[in-house]
Amino acid sequence: MQQVTLGLVGGGTVGGGVVAALNRNGALLASRLGLTLRVARIAVQDPKKNRSTRLPPELVTADWQEVVNDPTIQVVAELMGGTTTAREVVRTALSLGKPVVTANKALLSAHGEELFAIAARHGANLYYEASVAGGIPIIKILRESLVGNRVTRLAGIVNGTCNYILTRMKLEGAEFGDVLADAQRLGYAEAEPSLDVDGHDAAHKTGILASLAHGFWVAPEQVYTEGIRQISPLDIQFAAQLGYTIKLLGIVKMVGANSGDSRGRRKNPSIQVSVYPALIPNSHVLASVNYAFNAISVRGDIVGDTLFYGRGAGAEPTASAVLSDLADAALDLCHGSPRRVPPFVCHEGNGCVLGLDEVVSRYYVRLSVMDRPGVFSRIANVLAKARIGISSIIQPEGHAGETVPVILMIHDAPNAAMKRALAQIARLSVVKDTPVMIRVESLE
Amino acid sequence: MQQVTLGLVGGGTVGGGVVAALNRNGALLASRLGLTLRVARIAVQDPKKNRSTRLPPELVTADWQEVVNDPTIQVVAELMGGTTTAREVVRTALSLGKPVVTANKALLSAHGEELFAIAARHGANLYYEASVAGGIPIIKILRESLVGNRVTRLAGIVNGTCNYILTRMKLEGAEFGDVLADAQRLGYAEAEPSLDVDGHDAAHKTGILASLAHGFWVAPEQVYTEGIRQISPLDIQFAAQLGYTIKLLGIVKMVGANSGDSRGRRKNPSIQVSVYPALIPNSHVLASVNYAFNAISVRGDIVGDTLFYGRGAGAEPTASAVLSDLADAALDLCHGSPRRVPPFVCHEGNGCVLGLDEVVSRYYVRLSVMDRPGVFSRIANVLAKARIGISSIIQPEGHAGETVPVILMIHDAPNAAMKRALAQIARLSVVKDTPVMIRVESLE
Repeated sequence: MQQVTLGLVGGGTVGGGVVAALNRNGALLASRLGLTLRVARIAVQDPKKNRSTRLPPELVTADWQEVVNDPTIQVVAELMGGTTTAREVVRTALSLGKPVVTANKALLSAHGEELFAIAARHGANLYYEASVAGGIPIIKILRESLVGNRVTRLAGIVNGTCNYILTRMKLEGAEFGDVLADAQRLGYAEAEPSLDVDGHDAAHKTGILASLAHGFWVAPEQVYTEGIRQISPLDIQFAAQLGYTIKLLGIVKMVGANSGDSRGRRKNPSIQVSVYPALIPNSHVLASVNYAFNAISVRGDIVGDTLFYGRGAGAEPTASAVLSDLADAALDLCHGSPRRVPPFVCHEGNGCVLGLDEVVSRYYVRLSVMDRPGVFSRIANVLAKARIGISSIIQPEGHAGETVPVILMIHDAPNAAMKRALAQIARLSVVKDTPVMIRVESLE
Repeated sequence: MQQVTLGLVGGGTVGGGVVAALNRNGALLASRLGLTLRVARIAVQDPKKNRSTRLPPELVTADWQEVVNDPTIQVVAELMGGTTTAREVVRTALSLGKPVVTANKALLSAHGEELFAIAARHGANLYYEASVAGGIPIIKILRESLVGNRVTRLAGIVNGTCNYILTRMKLEGAEFGDVLADAQRLGYAEAEPSLDVDGHDAAHKTGILASLAHGFWVAPEQVYTEGIRQISPLDIQFAAQLGYTIKLLGIVKMVGANSGDSRGRRKNPSIQVSVYPALIPNSHVLASVNYAFNAISVRGDIVGDTLFYGRGAGAEPTASAVLSDLADAALDLCHGSPRRVPPFVCHEGNGCVLGLDEVVSRYYVRLSVMDRPGVFSRIANVLAKARIGISSIIQPEGHAGETVPVILMIHDAPNAAMKRALAQIARLSVVKDTPVMIRVESLE
């Protein structure tokens, strides 16, 4: 049986997971592919470290160049993380014409454009299934399974840490800070949680998905990003009363008339690319995605609505994705089709990412107001002048003179207009505290 | 740009859907693939028929041989349905070394083993994404994305007609027959509904998924099959009280110790392959899959739990799947890798399908009993002698002397033992009507 020789760079959680998975299912994989994957060399930071998966000592080196430059290594897997050395590893391997498999979303997000260009120049391929949503094969699905579709909307729960925290906040009525501390203790959140809870990790992934779906490069700084620190149990509870669940969503939406004409002539697409917490209807399958699970809902103009669900992180789900990329790389090598997989960014022409100000959304707004006559008319006046419609109101019973919460559900309004109106409302003397505003995604 | 020439056999719902989808997104597809797909010939039964998608008259012929044998046609798509002429079409095209795309699950189910062998012999490939679950790319997911996984359990809602009927029965409390009649009127069910409601269509698909996942051929007659005709609103309602929803499931499960050892040495797998209605917990995502949508939950030994959701039938979702296969076929042609896609049944050795008698399940049982003292002990005695445990009982309040329903939830028991015990219970003088037995899949 033909053999393909692999070099791994990184022997931590993901690298160890890949070695363990190959130990377990290598024979099965070989019988399916008609070829054997053999790990011939593994670069790690500290060869002496104790690891949960034993790495054969004769394969281990501390020098990544030894792995990448070894002429017998045919495929390189970059599983180390980070964006400095990892970038060098990927650049070097691709420049040698070797296919590279990476699980590194931060690297792709920061340097993807450069790396895919190097890959194309050297006739190699860069495979990156594991970079987004771990065990959910969303990259292959978008690139191959939905290749005949224009992706009109994508909405995904792509950060397991945030979904874990929001799920527990909902089920336990607990505060963000308390659940975060517990999640850190249990290993569901990092000691420095900002990358996750402020939405940056989700933004990296959403940018990659937007680029792949729309064929032009979406840089991370073009992704409007809000995290979940400001979400309170009170808002989760009011949302539930209204039939909604709050989830952190990565959103990629085609906007307005530029979504292409019926003859398939491609105009430059205008897309919204954002990460923010949103109220979604409980009847949507995404609302049932709990704890650390991820799910991505994709609407194609031919296929209609689809949804893909699984574990988004962890050694094993990530290893599963890396194995599928290694299989593709090996098949492409053995069948002499090194550039068969369609490239990352491939359309003629450029699209454009709309600033969120221009995007029309729906909103949940919670105000703290003095419970006295005339309060509501003053708020309603501000919105009416801004031509912003209210679709419903919840005002729990209160006692005259006290501060009470008022919930407004707001019709479609541009984000800039809504922001202005809300700033005016915040200045009303009857309004206490800063208004809370969370977008609503009806996912209809 | 390189061009790949397609011949379609079949111009009905699916064929018309493919032509419409290519009209709409052909340019987009070309920019993604770096090649153009051109439909050069279409064989239809009646070239004069009026169609919702116009077929260019100069491409249309009534003779499929003209399409398949045309030396300029590089890829053949069999979209006609049926198992007689369709089989000839696929055999002829593959024998000419032409890759074939098919949407025909009945054909694959009946003649797949033969057709894949012909494909292998002639170095062509048979692509069949559209044959199972329409717009859900489950074939590519199992074959490529989860290639590093042993599939320990698969449970799918793969028949949209049954799911539509069960959803409406639950939401409206309506009888099977009434909803079926309405579904027929609305086009969700065929005039002759047996293929769908008796589970045969689901069995075709489940057999294909079992074969693909486990690497040996599972014939349709090996799939234990029950349909949904015997499901009553009463059972749907009792299930709801217990926290369950009734769905028709296609199930493929590895059973017992034969699921392979930890070193990946493959023993011959023993698998359960069945189609039956089952109670599933409301908390599982599958329970929220409503109306004509399909979803397939797949557990891999590396990736853990995944789920894939979308429209299972209809012109457009099927066309989306056909386009992805046409893209793969075209890429494989242009990149000179005609046999790159791993074959359908590829492992060394054979597995075995367990007869359902040997399989252990849980059960929901509804009995109609005379409401008088001592009834329950007689039933419990039968089960105790058969060593079958009861996990819970619902007995609604009734009036002495009347016939009342009793619901038993039964622990794990082999199907043969359960069947025997139930036959004994049915013979008790206090038991009226035939006992109802529906399996419970906890999906834990």
